[in-house]
Amino acid sequence: MRMLINVAETVVADALRGMAAAHPELVVDAENRVIVRRDAPVAQKVALVSGGGSGHEPLHGGFVGPGMLDAACPGEVFTSPVPDQMVRAAAAVDSGNGVLFIVKNYTGDVLNFQMAAELAEDEGVQVASVLVNDDVAVIDSTFTAGRRGTGATLFVEKIAGAAAEEGMPLERVEALARQVVASSRSFGVALSACTTPAKGSPTFDLPAGELELGVGIHGEPGRERRAMMTSREIADFAVDAVLEDLDPRLPVLVLVNGMGATPLLELYGFNAEVRRVLDERGVAVARTLVGNYVTSLDMAGCSVTLCQVDGELLRLWDAPVETAGLRWGR
Amino acid sequence: MRMLINVAETVVADALRGMAAAHPELVVDAENRVIVRRDAPVAQKVALVSGGGSGHEPLHGGFVGPGMLDAACPGEVFTSPVPDQMVRAAAAVDSGNGVLFIVKNYTGDVLNFQMAAELAEDEGVQVASVLVNDDVAVIDSTFTAGRRGTGATLFVEKIAGAAAEEGMPLERVEALARQVVASSRSFGVALSACTTPAKGSPTFDLPAGELELGVGIHGEPGRERRAMMTSREIADFAVDAVLEDLDPRLPVLVLVNGMGATPLLELYGFNAEVRRVLDERGVAVARTLVGNYVTSLDMAGCSVTLCQVDGELLRLWDAPVETAGLRWGR
Repeated sequence: MRMLINVAETVVADALRGMAAAHPELVVDAENRVIVRRDAPVAQKVALVSGGGSGHEPLHGGFVGPGMLDAACPGEVFTSPVPDQMVRAAAAVDSGNGVLFIVKNYTGDVLNFQMAAELAEDEGVQVASVLVNDDVAVIDSTFTAGRRGTGATLFVEKIAGAAAEEGMPLERVEALARQVVASSRSFGVALSACTTPAKGSPTFDLPAGELELGVGIHGEPGRERRAMMTSREIADFAVDAVLEDLDPRLPVLVLVNGMGATPLLELYGFNAEVRRVLDERGVAVARTLVGNYVTSLDMAGCSVTLCQVDGELLRLWDAPVETAGLRWGR
Repeated sequence: MRMLINVAETVVADALRGMAAAHPELVVDAENRVIVRRDAPVAQKVALVSGGGSGHEPLHGGFVGPGMLDAACPGEVFTSPVPDQMVRAAAAVDSGNGVLFIVKNYTGDVLNFQMAAELAEDEGVQVASVLVNDDVAVIDSTFTAGRRGTGATLFVEKIAGAAAEEGMPLERVEALARQVVASSRSFGVALSACTTPAKGSPTFDLPAGELELGVGIHGEPGRERRAMMTSREIADFAVDAVLEDLDPRLPVLVLVNGMGATPLLELYGFNAEVRRVLDERGVAVARTLVGNYVTSLDMAGCSVTLCQVDGELLRLWDAPVETAGLRWGR
């Protein structure tokens, strides 16, 4: 165990206290586990709420702020948040213009966000929901009916967040979020397992010198296990897996995402290979983001997400964003 | 070996190609290993150049851009860049207003930047240099005469970068950089060793269940090795080590830095403990930055850097910055 923690039971609460200390621009309710932008509710604005198990940081709490989420609900590590958190978040951020729930497709998250939507509607909050299911690796998975939601969540939160910030109505923000989901595909690779605080040892067995192609962000099994491959071979495999399912006629946003323990030096090297494959396949790249954004604790590995974008999606991607985890101005 | 690479020999070159693909706002000369902001040389502006061994990303290449560095020179992994790179970088960014070299205190870096300064001066470039030596852990070290340069490098590059961006003259930018060095102290802790591509196995032996207090950013030995401690205990030890050497009468900037493989969830939890200790010791916090900024490949662990700031340093810290690794507007 090489964790920088006190005890497993307080990992999420401790992180929320530390987040509150670092980010005065956020209201972090560590007791109820809701992270809200300080100026919420923002008048005339549709509010965006997301959440999911902890351990994927900066997703989702690190994406709360102007131009992205209004609130995030962190669950226990790799465990869905509960409906109470979501209802509380929705109430905190709703300006009367409605709330969009952005839900990664895991069974627990789907059920809890569904229940929360009903409860919030009962309290007079208009709620729409969009399900993110971009992972092409497997059809059903350990925690999923249908495809898992992974890297595309960042694209959905950023683009829908920009649309909401511009004052677009709920149905338009929801439609754009759905467009991003429909236009995005991901594929992930694990070079090591990850270790949850509660277990204190690797969550699955991945011998040194092997990798898991198509791994999920909780270490769920993927398509196959192979002997270690080069960055070049992994890029070929991952990008081709994505392109088998997405035939981009428009330029793409590229997310080369680290799972947590793979150095940025390697991620940039991997991006060179991803770009080579895209060039070879005739796919134009509009923008590229490289870094640790949708992580799996201390897992080594990476994922590739592509999202084909028309002019409006690209404009919304480029719009200013000001969060702990993603930030730029124009 | 669980690395996302092709072969060890091309790791840095591959990363630079990937960086070029992701960042059209940079000119990345992969052959000569110089990263330059695309609009350099910027008229009327002092230029900032830094560099060092690769493996610490986003430092330094990820800090090239408006408000921070004009150029960075990446060496091989954990190896100083050569004088040719620095001379080339200086020539590319000098607008006639002089160049400041920001040098971490490692023997190779110091000698090479010194030689580069002489060569650049011969070519008519005015050069000043500032040495960063903030690590209080040990006096001399494996690669160092005197204290090592670590996390404070980020503070120096950001604050001096903002000063240069405002058009301050070389002697003022240099003086501010020296003020930041004099006002900053760091202490690092390793929970695991790191693995260089060339070696392919851990660079030092740190048994599971032990930690190295006072580790350097290349895994150099620190003050002592102990059985695993809690986040709370580590924060007490690290912050007290810093405060033994720095008696802040002004508020401090806090950098809670990840070494590479420690999840952001844990770093935020650690920040809660760092803040607790600072509160107990009566040290006021002006700003806090939590994340992986000065890394050691895939090392697990963290470091704490404090920098006490007057009104001007804080204003320069808050000034806009637009780089791959650090970015905000005001």
